[in-house]
Amino acid sequence: MKYILASASPRRKELLEKTGISFEIIPSSIEEKITEELPADIVTELAFQKADDVFEHYRTSHKEEFTVIGADTIVCYKDEILGKPADEQEALDVLSMLSDRTHQVYTGVALLTWENGKKIIRTFYEKTDVTFYPITRSDLLSYIASKDPFDKAGGYGIQGDFSIHVKSITGDYSNVVGLPIGRLYQEMELAD
Amino acid sequence: MKYILASASPRRKELLEKTGISFEIIPSSIEEKITEELPADIVTELAFQKADDVFEHYRTSHKEEFTVIGADTIVCYKDEILGKPADEQEALDVLSMLSDRTHQVYTGVALLTWENGKKIIRTFYEKTDVTFYPITRSDLLSYIASKDPFDKAGGYGIQGDFSIHVKSITGDYSNVVGLPIGRLYQEMELAD
Repeated sequence: MKYILASASPRRKELLEKTGISFEIIPSSIEEKITEELPADIVTELAFQKADDVFEHYRTSHKEEFTVIGADTIVCYKDEILGKPADEQEALDVLSMLSDRTHQVYTGVALLTWENGKKIIRTFYEKTDVTFYPITRSDLLSYIASKDPFDKAGGYGIQGDFSIHVKSITGDYSNVVGLPIGRLYQEMELAD
Repeated sequence: MKYILASASPRRKELLEKTGISFEIIPSSIEEKITEELPADIVTELAFQKADDVFEHYRTSHKEEFTVIGADTIVCYKDEILGKPADEQEALDVLSMLSDRTHQVYTGVALLTWENGKKIIRTFYEKTDVTFYPITRSDLLSYIASKDPFDKAGGYGIQGDFSIHVKSITGDYSNVVGLPIGRLYQEMELAD
């Protein structure tokens, strides 16, 4: 089976490589359109949109069977969705809110397979609770100065230097990084 | 303050680097001696032994103030401590036991500081629950063939390719890697 990852994220690429499968990267270029309200539904919807965009383009020009993997990650605190911070003030506001509290990270995944002339759709999501220690303003400012927050939902990357503030998580760690690789390995039925 | 990491583990070095402190690495060379019975007590005891070995050697030849950081990690399943597997059969036995179950990872940390002519001792430990999906024999054998299990307590590294089998964790992720960096950052009072 040919696999395509519909994401430009180097973190998702690195996680998917752990499964041992070979895959091609074709990022989707759609305008994301949210119609759902709950975090779990939103990430599943967006993961599907990304995967479907790549799926439809690929199918028009290729004959072989293939599977497209799309993913979307959001960070929530008390049902509020925290996007990528637009500027330093927004990064400070968001990270201050996460300090000394527990928030949720959702990643939705869509697997779209073209097989025997049929389109097979599978979607799922994983939720992980993340709890931070209290973080000083000075530590927040020096992290923001590193520019790490600006391409990341919720303004932080758990795999980078901000990890020194994590107290505990409940759920899958790779889900917070951006791709729930354990669940994905199960859903792709790669275990032989 | 001068910091010394009393561990040769590249994973612990990488985690400690996230705090931004500069430190020297001086691995301890003691024969570990377990007198305790509970996992939490054992890791604390061994972390102290490692740190104290380096502390005492260093103090004899240096005048400045310094802090030695020692750590020890063990993996437990139902109160049984799982060490580094000695051969392929042991690795297969241990990893088969962890498959489709929840086990515990304990890391003990000892901070030994020489300050104002006094030796200050601080110790703590963190516990993390790790749950694996069911893992096929074939997947276990190919992981064992990679030789990754043999230098790791419990026979696996959560940061490597074996992470595709992790269902969820409860607690600190870096604690499973070998150094609970969030708690350590708090205990070292590095937050300014």
